[in-house]
Amino acid sequence: MSVAKGDLYMIDDLIRKIKEKKAPVVVGLDPNLSYVPESIQKKAFIEFGETLEGAAEAIWEYNKGIIDAVYDLIPAVKPQIAMYEQYGIPGLVCFERTISYCQSKGLSVIGDVKRGDIGSTSEAYAVAHLGHTKVGKNELTCFHEDFATVNPYLGSDGVRPFLNICRKEGKGIFILVKTSNPSSGEFQDRLVDGRPLYELVSEKVHEWADAMGRGEFGYSGIGAVVGATYPEQGAALRKIMPDSYILVPGYGAQGGKGEDLTGFFNEDGLGAIINSSRGIICAYQQDKYSDYGADRYAEASRAAVLDMIADINGALGRDA
Amino acid sequence: MSVAKGDLYMIDDLIRKIKEKKAPVVVGLDPNLSYVPESIQKKAFIEFGETLEGAAEAIWEYNKGIIDAVYDLIPAVKPQIAMYEQYGIPGLVCFERTISYCQSKGLSVIGDVKRGDIGSTSEAYAVAHLGHTKVGKNELTCFHEDFATVNPYLGSDGVRPFLNICRKEGKGIFILVKTSNPSSGEFQDRLVDGRPLYELVSEKVHEWADAMGRGEFGYSGIGAVVGATYPEQGAALRKIMPDSYILVPGYGAQGGKGEDLTGFFNEDGLGAIINSSRGIICAYQQDKYSDYGADRYAEASRAAVLDMIADINGALGRDA
Repeated sequence: MSVAKGDLYMIDDLIRKIKEKKAPVVVGLDPNLSYVPESIQKKAFIEFGETLEGAAEAIWEYNKGIIDAVYDLIPAVKPQIAMYEQYGIPGLVCFERTISYCQSKGLSVIGDVKRGDIGSTSEAYAVAHLGHTKVGKNELTCFHEDFATVNPYLGSDGVRPFLNICRKEGKGIFILVKTSNPSSGEFQDRLVDGRPLYELVSEKVHEWADAMGRGEFGYSGIGAVVGATYPEQGAALRKIMPDSYILVPGYGAQGGKGEDLTGFFNEDGLGAIINSSRGIICAYQQDKYSDYGADRYAEASRAAVLDMIADINGALGRDA
Repeated sequence: MSVAKGDLYMIDDLIRKIKEKKAPVVVGLDPNLSYVPESIQKKAFIEFGETLEGAAEAIWEYNKGIIDAVYDLIPAVKPQIAMYEQYGIPGLVCFERTISYCQSKGLSVIGDVKRGDIGSTSEAYAVAHLGHTKVGKNELTCFHEDFATVNPYLGSDGVRPFLNICRKEGKGIFILVKTSNPSSGEFQDRLVDGRPLYELVSEKVHEWADAMGRGEFGYSGIGAVVGATYPEQGAALRKIMPDSYILVPGYGAQGGKGEDLTGFFNEDGLGAIINSSRGIICAYQQDKYSDYGADRYAEASRAAVLDMIADINGALGRDA
C-alpha cells in the first residue's frame, strides 16, 4: 500500500535531512552528571544547590552546548528518557526542554522511551510522547517527540495504540527487535519453530509497517531497533523488513564499527540510522579527543560526530 | 539462601499488611480524566484552566478521595505511571504526590512503570524509581516507590541494575512474565524447546529471587506479574517460582474473578496480590454501584474494595 506524499511526514522529513546532511547518524543525548564538566556543574550548583534542580540545570547547559556544536551536521537526536528520569521532575523538565530546543534547531527527535503496556495503558504512553492530551476543549502536547521507541513484549494490543497515534499525527516508532546489549539473546534469540524470537518480532514489524503505508522515499514510519553489535542479524532483519527504517544503537562505546554496519542499509543507501551516545557526548573524556579538555567538550563532540560520519560513509563506499 | 530478618523489609512489610488486613489486594490508581467526576474537574479548571496543570489537579483530588476512603482496608496501591505521563510534567508531579500521600497513609506503593533497558540505562530507571540519585554530596530520591514492575525483554543485564538497587535499598520488583492482555500470547506463549517463553522468563525470576534470599515470611523481594486472565498458567508458574510474590492484574474490568485465582496462591495462603484498577476507582460508573452517584465516588470505591476482598477470601475459603 502506498500513501499520499506528506502523510508520513516525520519519516519523510527525517530521510530528507539524512540525505541533505549525508549523515545517517543520530546523537544519543543520554547525559549523566558524571559526564558534565566540573565548571558547568559548579555554576548550576551555585544557583540551585546540589539538588535535582541543580543537576537538571547542569545537564541542560551541557546538552545545549553539544546541540549548538553539532546540529548542522546531523539529522536527528535520541534523548534517552531514563537518564532524565533519574533526576526526577526537574530531570523530566530538562528532557522536554531538550526536545523543544532540538526541534527549534531543525532536528528530528527520537524519544528513547521503550514504553509498552497493555492496550489502554499503551494508549496513554502514545499520547504522552507522540500525541495530544485532551483536557476540556483543549488538545495539549506533553513531550512531543517525533518518534518513540516501543517494547513489543506485550504483543500487538500493546503496540496498536502507538500505530493509531502515528497514523493520526504523522509520527513514527522504532520497535525493539534485537537490542545491542550482551544478554539480549537470553530471550530474544530463543528459537521458536527453529527461528529466533526476534525474527518473529521483525515479521510483525513488517506487517505493521506495511499496513501503515510508505512515504515519499518508500519507507514506513514504523521502524525497528537492531543493535550494531549484531551485524549478521542486522543484515538478515534488513531483508525481512524492507520498508522499515532500522535504528541502530551500539556504535562506538558499545563496540560497533562502520564496517559492521553496511548490512543494515538497503541498496538505495537508506534504511538505517546509526546512534552513538557516550561516544559523542563524552568525546572529551576519550584519549582520542582529550586535547580539547573539559571546557571545549562541545568541540570534542563535533569532532567525534565528523569522525563517525566519515567512518560510516567510508564503510558505505561514499564521500561524506 | 536465607537472609537476616528485616533485610528485605519492603516485601516483609507488604506481607505483614496483607496478613493484618486479611486482604491480598492492591488498588490500581490508574486515573484518566474521563473517570473524574464533573464537579472535581470543574473546580480544578476554575483554578488552573483546561491545562495539564488543571487535569493533574483534578486527578490528584480524585486520587486523594479514593485513598482516604480505602486506605484502611488495603495493604498497597499500584499507580500506573502511563496514566500520569499522559498529563506531562504536571501529571508526573501528581504521580509523585500520590506516592507520597499513599506512603504517609501506611500503604505500600508498587510503581507500575514496566521499565527495562540495557544495563547502564536500566540503572538510571532503577535509581529514579527505587534508589537514590547522587548530586554532589547529596543522595536524593525521585519517585521513591517501594516496588516497581520491570520488563524483561532485554535479558539479565537489563534486570540486574534493578536487583542491585533492591538489595541495597531493601525494595522489590515484579518482573513481567505473562501479562493479562488478550495478545500477551503473541510472543510470551511461543514455544521454545517445547515450552512457552514465559516459563523461561519465570525460571530466570526464580533464579534472581533465589539469589536475593528470603525474608521473614519465606518470600523474596523479586516477584512476577502474571495476569488473572490466565489462571492455568498462573497455577503452573506458582510452582516454578515458589518464593516469589505474584502480582496479578486483570481482576474485575479485564474479566478475572476470585474463583480463578486460587492457583496463584501458595499453601500458606500467601504468594499473590490481586490488582483491580478501573473496577475500584471507577466503581461509581458501574451499574452495581451507581446508586452512590458521582459525588460519592469514593464511597463506591470503598464498597467495591470490600466486595473484592470478600470475593477473593471466599474463593480461598476463608473469612475476610
